Amino acid sequence: MSADDFNIGLLGRGTVGSAFSELLAERGEQVRRLTGRRPRLSGVLTREQGRFEDVLENAELVIELMGGIDPAREHVLSAMRAGRHVVTANKQLLSQHGEELFATAHEHGVQLRFEAAVAGVVPVVRVLEESLAGAHIERIHGIVNGTTNFILTEMTGGSSYPQALAEAQRRGFAEADPSDDVSGRDAAAKMAILARLAFGAPVRLEDVRYEGIEGLQGDDLQYAHELGLELKLIGTAERRDGGLSVRVHPAFLYAGHPLASVGGPFNAVTVESEAITEITMSGPGAGGRQTASAVLGDLISVMLGATVARPPVSPLALVEDVESAFYLHMEVADRSGVLATVTQALGEQGVSIKSVLQRGMGENARLVMVTHLVLESSLNAAIERAGQFDFVRSAPRTIRVIEEEFT
Amino acid sequence: MSADDFNIGLLGRGTVGSAFSELLAERGEQVRRLTGRRPRLSGVLTREQGRFEDVLENAELVIELMGGIDPAREHVLSAMRAGRHVVTANKQLLSQHGEELFATAHEHGVQLRFEAAVAGVVPVVRVLEESLAGAHIERIHGIVNGTTNFILTEMTGGSSYPQALAEAQRRGFAEADPSDDVSGRDAAAKMAILARLAFGAPVRLEDVRYEGIEGLQGDDLQYAHELGLELKLIGTAERRDGGLSVRVHPAFLYAGHPLASVGGPFNAVTVESEAITEITMSGPGAGGRQTASAVLGDLISVMLGATVARPPVSPLALVEDVESAFYLHMEVADRSGVLATVTQALGEQGVSIKSVLQRGMGENARLVMVTHLVLESSLNAAIERAGQFDFVRSAPRTIRVIEEEFT
Repeated sequence: MSADDFNIGLLGRGTVGSAFSELLAERGEQVRRLTGRRPRLSGVLTREQGRFEDVLENAELVIELMGGIDPAREHVLSAMRAGRHVVTANKQLLSQHGEELFATAHEHGVQLRFEAAVAGVVPVVRVLEESLAGAHIERIHGIVNGTTNFILTEMTGGSSYPQALAEAQRRGFAEADPSDDVSGRDAAAKMAILARLAFGAPVRLEDVRYEGIEGLQGDDLQYAHELGLELKLIGTAERRDGGLSVRVHPAFLYAGHPLASVGGPFNAVTVESEAITEITMSGPGAGGRQTASAVLGDLISVMLGATVARPPVSPLALVEDVESAFYLHMEVADRSGVLATVTQALGEQGVSIKSVLQRGMGENARLVMVTHLVLESSLNAAIERAGQFDFVRSAPRTIRVIEEEFT
Repeated sequence: MSADDFNIGLLGRGTVGSAFSELLAERGEQVRRLTGRRPRLSGVLTREQGRFEDVLENAELVIELMGGIDPAREHVLSAMRAGRHVVTANKQLLSQHGEELFATAHEHGVQLRFEAAVAGVVPVVRVLEESLAGAHIERIHGIVNGTTNFILTEMTGGSSYPQALAEAQRRGFAEADPSDDVSGRDAAAKMAILARLAFGAPVRLEDVRYEGIEGLQGDDLQYAHELGLELKLIGTAERRDGGLSVRVHPAFLYAGHPLASVGGPFNAVTVESEAITEITMSGPGAGGRQTASAVLGDLISVMLGATVARPPVSPLALVEDVESAFYLHMEVADRSGVLATVTQALGEQGVSIKSVLQRGMGENARLVMVTHLVLESSLNAAIERAGQFDFVRSAPRTIRVIEEEFT
C-alpha cells in the first residue's frame, strides 16, 4: 500500500464481485495511467467474512454488489453519510429507494453512480445523465432484460415457452426461479430508474405497470411473423398528455424499428428527443465480466472527480390509459358475417382495423387483426363486447404493437 | 448579463452554429438548473462580423464551428493558450492536428471536447473516453458517414450510383461537391479520431487507408444480396499483430452483424473488447440540430467541471497488410474447367473459397466467390494471376467481407 493507492471497499463477492476483483487486477495499471492513482481493494464484505465498519473505515469509495434491499440499503446510506462515494449495480435498491439515495448523496456531497444497474454494458445511464443532460427527452424504449429477450428469440425460432425457458436455464441466461425476469418485474425496475433520469421525476418500481411473457402463445408469434412483426418485451417511458407513462409489456415491433433486430441475451435502449431524433445503444445485457466493466467505468469517473449534476426532481402525473396499436387474436367459428360483426363491434368503441388475417378452419377459425392507435380502455371495452358473441370460442388475446416513429 | 452567466464565444454561424444558438436559447434554463449558471453567447465570430480577440476576451469557453484548418486551428490554439476551454465539431482539425491540440489543452489545463466531430449525436467519443476508459479495446467498426450510407441504401434498393447520389443531393444529405464523402476521406478522418481515443496512439488522417464508393457496381450489390450480404462503407480501427490497422472501405456484412441493419443517413459504431463483448450505438449522422445537441452535451460537461483524462500517447506500428474475407467478382467465358482453373490458381496463393455463385451466359458468364480469411497481399497476387487467364473478360473486382464476430 502506498499514498498513491485509491482504496475501495467491496460489498459482495458473488459473480459480479468476483469478476470485478479480476478486472481490477488486470486493468489497475491502465486506471493508474488515467487517474494517477492505483485502485486497490482495501476491504471486502461477504456473508461469511468481514465487518462493514472495517471495510468502510479504510475506503474512499464503496462498491455495492450484494443486491437486494437489506442490508444493501443501510450500507449504502451509511457509506454516503460517512462521506464515501458509492458505485452500485443494485436495480432493486435504486428503483425502490432512489429518492432517499439521491438525496443522501446530494446532502453529503458524494457521488452515486450506477451504470451497471440498468442494461449491462450498454452505457445508457451515462448517456442520459451526461450526453443528453440538456436534451428534452420524449421517449425511451428498451429491451432491458436479456433473459426474456433470449426466450422470445428462441420462441420466434419455433420453440415453445417451456422449451425456450429450459434452454435459457441450461445456458445460464435464466435462474432456477426465473419469475423476476419472466414476470417483467426486473425490466420494470430498470425502466423506473431510466424514467427518473430521463424526466427528472421520482418514478419508483411500484409506479410501473408491467406484464411478463408467461402468457404468450406460440401461434401469436407465427401470425405476427406473417404480419411482418417481431415480438419483444419492451419497456417504455414517455411523456404523455403532460404526464408520464412508464410500463413494460410484450410488444410487436415493425421490422424497421431499431429494436426489432436485437436478438438473444442482448439489451438495447432507444432514446428519442426532437433535437437528436433518436439514439439506439445495444450490447450484452448480463454476464459478470460485462457488468464488472460497467462498474469499472463508474469507478474511473469517480476517481477523476467527474461529478454528475442531478437537478431537483419535480413530480409528473402518471398516465395509466395510453394509446397503442394492438394485435388482436380471436378464435371464432367460421361462419359468414363473423368478420363484419366483429369489426362493427370494435368500430363502435373507436377501434379501427389496419390489417387482418383470417384463417378459415370450420369451428376453429382464427381472426388476427392489427388495430390503428386506440386508448387501452377503449380497446378493453371493445374486446369485452366482442368476446360476448356466441361464435367466439375463447377469450380474445391482445398484444401491443409499436410502430416506427422515425423513418 | 449577471455574475451567474457563463460566457461562450462562438466561432462560425453556419448550419450548425445557427442551430446551436437556437438550441441554447431553448435549453438555457435546463442548463442553468443543472450547472447553476446560465450559458450565454457573449460573442460571435463569422466571416463578415466580429474580431477573434474580442470574442476570446469575454468568453470562458470557445465553441468552434467554422470547420476547416485555417483559421480554425490558430483560433483554437490561441483560445486554449489563453486558458479557455474549447468545444469543437471539427473533424479535419482533430484528425490532422490532434496531437498539437491535445498537448496544448494538457499544457494549459483546459478542456478540449469534440463529441460532434465524429458521428453526429452518437455519443461514441464520451463512451470511449469515459465508460470504456479502463477497457482494453480490440476493434471499432463504424458507419461514420451518413451520405454514403444513404447512397448505398438507395443502391441496395435498385438505384444506380448516379441516381442515388442525385437523390442524396436533392434531400440535402450530400453536398454539390460530394468528393470528401464518397471518396471515404471524411470517414477516414473520423476513424483517425476514434483510433486515437480507443488505442491511445497518435493516428492521423494520413495514416488511414481509404477507398470510397464511386467504383461500386450495381450488380455487385445484387450478387451480394443472393449471398446474404449487406454493403456498407465501413471504417475499421483494430489491433493487429501488435500494431494497429485503421482503414475505410466498402465492405459486405453478414445479415446478423450489428451494423448490417443500419440504413439511410444514419451513423453507427460497434466497439469490441473482450470484457464487454461489444457495444453498438447508432443515430442520425448529421443535421444541424443533431450536431448542435452533441455540442450542448459537451458544453454542459465543461460547465460541470467534468474532466477527461487522456493518458500520454504511445505510438503503435501501423499494419498495412491485414487478413479479410473477400467477395470476388470475375467475368469469364463459360467454358468447361473455368471454375476449377480459377480455384486452383487462387489456392496456390493461399486463397480458399467459402461460397460460389456461377452464372453461365456463354461468353459473358459471372463467377462470384466469397473467400475464407486471407492476407490482402496474397489475395492481390492471386487476383493478378487469375486475371491473366485468356478466358477472363475484364479485371476481377474485390470487396472485403466482414463476418460477425460474436454470435
